[in-house]
Amino acid sequence: MEKTFVIGIDIGGTNTVYGVVDARGTILYSGSIKTGKHADIKDYITELGKGLEIVIDQVGGHEKIKGIGVGAPNGNYFNGCIEFAPNLPWKGRIPLAQLISESVGCIPVTLTNDANAAAIGEMTYGAARGMKDFIVITLGTGVGSGIVIGGNLVYGNDGFAGELGHTIIRRKNGRNCGCGRQGCLEAYTSATGVARTAREILELRTDESVLRDIDPDEITSKDVYDAAMKGDRVALEIFEFTGHMLGEAFADFIAFSSPEAIILFGGLTKAGDLIMNPIRESMDKNVLKVFAGKTKLIFSQLKESDAAVLGASALGWEAKEID
Amino acid sequence: MEKTFVIGIDIGGTNTVYGVVDARGTILYSGSIKTGKHADIKDYITELGKGLEIVIDQVGGHEKIKGIGVGAPNGNYFNGCIEFAPNLPWKGRIPLAQLISESVGCIPVTLTNDANAAAIGEMTYGAARGMKDFIVITLGTGVGSGIVIGGNLVYGNDGFAGELGHTIIRRKNGRNCGCGRQGCLEAYTSATGVARTAREILELRTDESVLRDIDPDEITSKDVYDAAMKGDRVALEIFEFTGHMLGEAFADFIAFSSPEAIILFGGLTKAGDLIMNPIRESMDKNVLKVFAGKTKLIFSQLKESDAAVLGASALGWEAKEID
Repeated sequence: MEKTFVIGIDIGGTNTVYGVVDARGTILYSGSIKTGKHADIKDYITELGKGLEIVIDQVGGHEKIKGIGVGAPNGNYFNGCIEFAPNLPWKGRIPLAQLISESVGCIPVTLTNDANAAAIGEMTYGAARGMKDFIVITLGTGVGSGIVIGGNLVYGNDGFAGELGHTIIRRKNGRNCGCGRQGCLEAYTSATGVARTAREILELRTDESVLRDIDPDEITSKDVYDAAMKGDRVALEIFEFTGHMLGEAFADFIAFSSPEAIILFGGLTKAGDLIMNPIRESMDKNVLKVFAGKTKLIFSQLKESDAAVLGASALGWEAKEID
Repeated sequence: MEKTFVIGIDIGGTNTVYGVVDARGTILYSGSIKTGKHADIKDYITELGKGLEIVIDQVGGHEKIKGIGVGAPNGNYFNGCIEFAPNLPWKGRIPLAQLISESVGCIPVTLTNDANAAAIGEMTYGAARGMKDFIVITLGTGVGSGIVIGGNLVYGNDGFAGELGHTIIRRKNGRNCGCGRQGCLEAYTSATGVARTAREILELRTDESVLRDIDPDEITSKDVYDAAMKGDRVALEIFEFTGHMLGEAFADFIAFSSPEAIILFGGLTKAGDLIMNPIRESMDKNVLKVFAGKTKLIFSQLKESDAAVLGASALGWEAKEID
């Protein structure tokens, strides 16, 4: 029987989303589970396996599935493990590809970084079609990146290249990051970083803001967005601060690989011009002269959940059965 | 007649070195001219052309030369121009490959960044033999880099990728850099950056140092090295400061491409452990946990002048005659 479908799984710090995808890139059936509520990896795999079996049945059973592609934080393309992922509940080295494969009758599984999967999705179906050199920056619970150079994803010597959320943007007095260090880009420009900025500004300043109506510990980046859309000055400044930092960082990324485009992906991109304008201004101001005006700054053209699942699913076509 | 030789030209901020190279990578004849003394590019090309004709004659004339490879700051592999090179006397965009070719009877010329040429030399003859993912950092008048990913040099979308000397290492109160911005790695960790650090420390502090016997405006990185070898405390601290900054920067570079090795090249590497020990300490302290202990830190295994000329010459074999 011809194997005509693949499965894409996107594992985020909060949610795990999966879907069955056909050869034209259509997601036929999908589902999701909460990533964070399973402190034990076995419980997580059990619940995920149940969900996968449902969508597998919907397209006609295991025989129809060519392979499974997984995008996960700190996912290693070379060995199928997630290793030391700061935003996931499981510590150390987890053989995730193997565990998922075993949970669904040994369908072959290929794993990569969730941001790399997004970059593959963008290259196959989105804003990076036809591009050979680009960087996808994912602005979600964390800040991830998928780097494509000469048409190939950059995996590096160990499979973990492209951790641009953990380059240092503030070397002095930097915020603590989930990775155990200080001053990482992620600590400032992830969705949670934006909420931290809000709490910091509200505590340091006394000017009015609709954000003061919210319990500081409960403020989210969505609250900041809603306030900014109402013209709240503090909320607008939070996006400016966040965007300026991203622009500074992007100027350094451009000095590394001189990409045709940097593509923004993930929850924070819903802020649109509120985040894009300060990024562009700061990137233009900070970039080395030889690169001025050369790198496009664009939003992902794919729906967030679709892109991650589609990108991961693309890996499913190259998944090989274990001998 | 078989074309059995290539010419490599290494253009540095101070000297231009060239040599005729055979297929086994032996430099048969070589020469050099001063780069900086020619404010007019035409004068420079005239003197360089005369020097090249001498070495060409020594191996039997133009018919013996397959091509010329040039490594030059801000050299663009794609169009053969140098563009906005901060450490060269010529401003704007200079069609260097074409000018050199015309000066020697239209032998084909291929151009790249001097640091890229060093990386090709290192991959072909040096410390990077057999490696597919590594970064060469050149510590000379400026700080350059040649990045190899998956066995290929990273040229980027415009031919200028790999300007790691112009990533920002100090965002607040950073030193002015020759590129017109502030806080670049090059402003601190080039040979001239080391001399600037010496001047700054001597002015800010009052403790004794043999460096105080030298006119501050005349201090060079060589003076700092000589003082450090005599055990001068201030000179040792200057190398520690420089090395720590490089280590911080390398930790970020590793987060980008996760290379098997970072290879140090250029004048400052003569300082040996004086610079290597603080780099290693700082890199290990600052690197993201997932990359800990994975990237080798090594010195170039080639003589400085040889590596640059050999690397550039390797491009000569792929040079094509203009139709």
